Amino acid sequence: MDELDIDAVAEAALDDPVLVEGLPGVGHVGKLAVDHLLEELDGESTLVRRVYSHEFPPQVSIEGGVSELTCVEIYAVSPTEGRDLLLLTGDHQAQTNEGHYVLTSAFLDIAEEFGASEVFALGGVPTGELIDEYAVVGAVSDESMLGELEEAGVEFREDEPAGGIVGVSGLLLGLGERRGFEAACLMGETSGYLVDPKSARAVLEVLEDVLDIELDYETLDERADEMEGVIGKIQEMEQQQQMDVPTDDDLRYIG
Amino acid sequence: MDELDIDAVAEAALDDPVLVEGLPGVGHVGKLAVDHLLEELDGESTLVRRVYSHEFPPQVSIEGGVSELTCVEIYAVSPTEGRDLLLLTGDHQAQTNEGHYVLTSAFLDIAEEFGASEVFALGGVPTGELIDEYAVVGAVSDESMLGELEEAGVEFREDEPAGGIVGVSGLLLGLGERRGFEAACLMGETSGYLVDPKSARAVLEVLEDVLDIELDYETLDERADEMEGVIGKIQEMEQQQQMDVPTDDDLRYIG
Amino acid sequence: MDELDIDAVAEAALDDPVLVEGLPGVGHVGKLAVDHLLEELDGESTLVRRVYSHEFPPQVSIEGGVSELTCVEIYAVSPTEGRDLLLLTGDHQAQTNEGHYVLTSAFLDIAEEFGASEVFALGGVPTGELIDEYAVVGAVSDESMLGELEEAGVEFREDEPAGGIVGVSGLLLGLGERRGFEAACLMGETSGYLVDPKSARAVLEVLEDVLDIELDYETLDERADEMEGVIGKIQEMEQQQQMDVPTDDDLRYIG
Amino acid sequence: MDELDIDAVAEAALDDPVLVEGLPGVGHVGKLAVDHLLEELDGESTLVRRVYSHEFPPQVSIEGGVSELTCVEIYAVSPTEGRDLLLLTGDHQAQTNEGHYVLTSAFLDIAEEFGASEVFALGGVPTGELIDEYAVVGAVSDESMLGELEEAGVEFREDEPAGGIVGVSGLLLGLGERRGFEAACLMGETSGYLVDPKSARAVLEVLEDVLDIELDYETLDERADEMEGVIGKIQEMEQQQQMDVPTDDDLRYIG
Repeated sequence: MDELDIDAVAEAALDDPVLVEGLPGVGHVGKLAVDHLLEELDGESTLVRRVYSHEFPPQVSIEGGVSELTCVEIYAVSPTEGRDLLLLTGDHQAQTNEGHYVLTSAFLDIAEEFGASEVFALGGVPTGELIDEYAVVGAVSDESMLGELEEAGVEFREDEPAGGIVGVSGLLLGLGERRGFEAACLMGETSGYLVDPKSARAVLEVLEDVLDIELDYETLDERADEMEGVIGKIQEMEQQQQMDVPTDDDLRYIG
Repeated sequence: MDELDIDAVAEAALDDPVLVEGLPGVGHVGKLAVDHLLEELDGESTLVRRVYSHEFPPQVSIEGGVSELTCVEIYAVSPTEGRDLLLLTGDHQAQTNEGHYVLTSAFLDIAEEFGASEVFALGGVPTGELIDEYAVVGAVSDESMLGELEEAGVEFREDEPAGGIVGVSGLLLGLGERRGFEAACLMGETSGYLVDPKSARAVLEVLEDVLDIELDYETLDERADEMEGVIGKIQEMEQQQQMDVPTDDDLRYIG
Repeated sequence: MDELDIDAVAEAALDDPVLVEGLPGVGHVGKLAVDHLLEELDGESTLVRRVYSHEFPPQVSIEGGVSELTCVEIYAVSPTEGRDLLLLTGDHQAQTNEGHYVLTSAFLDIAEEFGASEVFALGGVPTGELIDEYAVVGAVSDESMLGELEEAGVEFREDEPAGGIVGVSGLLLGLGERRGFEAACLMGETSGYLVDPKSARAVLEVLEDVLDIELDYETLDERADEMEGVIGKIQEMEQQQQMDVPTDDDLRYIG
Repeated sequence: MDELDIDAVAEAALDDPVLVEGLPGVGHVGKLAVDHLLEELDGESTLVRRVYSHEFPPQVSIEGGVSELTCVEIYAVSPTEGRDLLLLTGDHQAQTNEGHYVLTSAFLDIAEEFGASEVFALGGVPTGELIDEYAVVGAVSDESMLGELEEAGVEFREDEPAGGIVGVSGLLLGLGERRGFEAACLMGETSGYLVDPKSARAVLEVLEDVLDIELDYETLDERADEMEGVIGKIQEMEQQQQMDVPTDDDLRYIG
């Protein structure tokens, strides 16, 4: 296998599609969002490409005893309403700095091949605390894209995210711009501690508006409810621990 | 030396052989198993290839003052009974992610060269505790292989191993499948703390069934007895330590 | 994108220019110095090259919601007085050993392209303590350069810096010399704990002398004043902590 | 600069020379030994090659303010008595696994170019304790070399060094053998904690015998005396500390 090995699983004729990327990251927000899109648009999507690479971990996943080699999958979607899409999902990021450059270039090659000139990179931005109102923070490769996204409720903040955007999501903007793509990153606020389906929903609601699609959130809301249960238990445990704080007297015997 | 440097030590005409891989890993199960096969099939095996690579540690081993450069060795075996074999053994894994891809590809090239279309990757799966009944957990590159291995006593478990299979064993399945091999990984349960000849025997007993070979386990059982002695001593020490647990009173003076 | 991707943003005819490098490092001295030069020579400078590379972190920075791919920028400057300059600035160093070699070679290629045969690498040398008198320590690629720099106040010390000079600054001397450049490294003494505009000023004052340019330090002095405030607060906190040191009696209850 | 960049500083006609390598390592034994050879054979040696590489740290050393790029130097020596030599010295090892392979191959290329077919790799083997009698442990690329070295006092031990030999010294044997060199590694026993001129002398005394050369050890013995002083002070401090061990009573107040 070469550094990159791309399987052309199927072909699809798309009309001016948008590449939407959702690889694992903070709160798994991007991956949850794209996987939900795939689930909702199931009848209208076709797996078109699998990308294998030396840059992924040397690993197979096992389901029911059967192995699958680490890869990224790209689906072509022609929904009955709204824009055509290329949905990119996978279980792993590249393992080296250079790998992020190599894979992002490959993803943009495939986007070009299918006629895409717009990219949305989905992800999460960590706030460090549990969130009530899920804002979606944005970044764009070109100023001209600010207006439409602001109308869709995306917040653009001075010098945020402070450390910039790292990995494939960042490079889809950086390398995308150099190759003539219009690229935006949509980042749902999330605590950063837990898988966050609510943050994924916030990001998808922006996409509904921008891409003229309509989504049902039942399955994502169910996952959010499960997570609420987990969060509830964590909070209970924390409160319990606070009540159990040892006194000075206890500490003398532990120290 | 290039990234890969393969010595054709000898040639051998094999009839539909099976590649059996046993590099170092959890409990050294895979390596113990293949080395035992080599020992048992000594009179019927020929060293055919040595694989050197930049991907191995830059190291020679020394025996009796004489150096040997780190490599993987592949033996051709035509047993009087049962399937022809290609046995792959060595003292080191690749040192980088990319190295695992490069070496696995080279091993599959050699398997192809000798006419093999089946692969067994042998290894261990860690359970975290000492084991009484040694189950063998399996993973296959294609569903069609499940039946025969289940009949031979291999267990296939939903989503296990949880983290997938990493390294050469995993890639023999993942890359193997992409090149048309039928590949299976047989993983003996093992505590993960110690070299485990009993787990290697459990894996070999599956192979005996599947490959129509018969093995004697005397030398492997001797190593198992030695390990039992080591385990006994560790357990004694643990019990001793539990009896020596300091009281609260002692702790006050240590704290 | 290839390992290196150089944008020729503009061209400029320079007369025997000097390359001045200031990438991030100890006390950010080099970067502060070159960025101040750029600010002061704003009306007379042109951005001529952007260097992108796999060797940089896979990252975009975000300002006002708009992304910019990590790169190094090179400006051509023809000041009304003094030598022509090529100013090299950026937010990141290479991330690997090899990357430092690759990028330094690219920078020297560009310097050559614009007719430069002299290089000044600017940086800081850590002293481990706060500094009153900011000395500038030097290193040169060829003995013949010692005299002029000593006259400009640069100190050359036996076996200092002890560990040599690492990264782009070091390689501009080492690789520069091999390609026929006269290269010097000017290192302002700095504590190593804080961004140090005063150390940057000390380095720039040497450059004023050597390059026959004149600089105003108002904005750099303002940043130095801000840092003084920060240092003052740290010192206060340290003194406060010393006064709060617990007694033996306190410690018994904490231990 | 490419991955390798070799300066042909001078040429020299040698008669069946032996390559002697001494890069930094355990106790700096190898480097001390080769540098002492260079010092002793000063009038009869010529610097013939400098090897630069991306595989070295990106670094210049500074002496008296003047920089020198990290490299390995190879000297040709035609002593009035004894075998012709190629002496290899430097301040750094390669920084990656692959780098050790790349550099060792380059060193063997140069050895071949000058007509060498024998290699001595010099180094130290750590014992973990201070040493009275300095044994020299050996390893060879081919059994046939054992006899002559045993006669010269080299000890060959079963399975020692236990972990094999890592880095350039190990690969000079491993890659050397594959290219038809007779290669031996001579390892002076050394504590492993300190630079060890006595261990270097032990190694050189073997070389005197094997290469028919005669060496004076005055300067090396002076360095050994300096180290004795350091060791004496360390031992004093250790004894002092043992006398200062706190009682249980003291500890109660520290805990």
